[in-house]
Amino acid sequence: MSWSPGRKQDNHKISRELFVLTYGALVAQLCKDYEKDEDVNTCLDRMGYGIGVRLIDDFLARSAVKKCRSYSETADMIAQVAFKTYLGITPSVSCSSAAGNEFSLILDKNPLVDFVEELPAERASLCYSNLLCGVIRGALEMVHLAAEVTFLQDRLKGDAVTEIGITFLRKPEDRKHKR
Amino acid sequence: MSWSPGRKQDNHKISRELFVLTYGALVAQLCKDYEKDEDVNTCLDRMGYGIGVRLIDDFLARSAVKKCRSYSETADMIAQVAFKTYLGITPSVSCSSAAGNEFSLILDKNPLVDFVEELPAERASLCYSNLLCGVIRGALEMVHLAAEVTFLQDRLKGDAVTEIGITFLRKPEDRKHKR
Repeated sequence: MSWSPGRKQDNHKISRELFVLTYGALVAQLCKDYEKDEDVNTCLDRMGYGIGVRLIDDFLARSAVKKCRSYSETADMIAQVAFKTYLGITPSVSCSSAAGNEFSLILDKNPLVDFVEELPAERASLCYSNLLCGVIRGALEMVHLAAEVTFLQDRLKGDAVTEIGITFLRKPEDRKHKR
Repeated sequence: MSWSPGRKQDNHKISRELFVLTYGALVAQLCKDYEKDEDVNTCLDRMGYGIGVRLIDDFLARSAVKKCRSYSETADMIAQVAFKTYLGITPSVSCSSAAGNEFSLILDKNPLVDFVEELPAERASLCYSNLLCGVIRGALEMVHLAAEVTFLQDRLKGDAVTEIGITFLRKPEDRKHKR
């Protein structure tokens, strides 16, 4: 596919049910394609990365946000503006390291799993919503922030909450750099 | 995956960019999986069918619509309520047969292709948005209406408009049946 670069988007909203079901079809297809859960997870992350790389332009244009001056501000921006804009939810944020570069997004409700009751037994290691991690990672990279993004807990797997961990990776030569 | 049956959904809207990019990732994955465009088209239609079968409950609950009394009313309902609700657009409808069972939905703008400039030369037969046909077909079947749904024109292929054709299939024993 060729993609049109940097198009201004109309601000149309859509119902999320169609999105959630389409995402379910995508995950199901990948489960058909890949036997190992890890390969599905990697593929979802990779796809998400590509989406994040594109979505960041839309996000910056749409939200007209100021530049974040700290990792903490960046994490808040992801939770309060990005998640709200794109998924209609606002995760809570907590900093989980003294170094100030590790954050947790706690999702009370994960819209992506709206129609999913539980994972099948043979797919116990599947990170169903792993696309989200890739999206965050890709978008951050486009504003020159390297990060590791992974699911730390998932209600779909019986955890009490759904938690996405974001670890901002400081470069050795750039310890005081903050955005 | 197990799916929770008939859950009442919150009426949250999401930004369509994430949906459109996720759909793009799905089509790209299928193009990787299947060499022939026809196989990708079939797969998208089949996935859409599964989505339509699920989405109809949400649609009926959400829109609290009256039962349609004719094919014409049904076509209008698809364009004016379903498309508006789920994709934020309202196609125009025209009846294209004297028998009154063939309709065209004309999409001035197809949100699914927002980020797509053109199909690659080797994918000239791809019906990029074919999921939509499956969704319509699946949803109609759940209200006991058999239909053929196909793209008749597609701006992505150089046509002047994007046109989805819906042909309601009358059963021989049920010629006077209308919904």
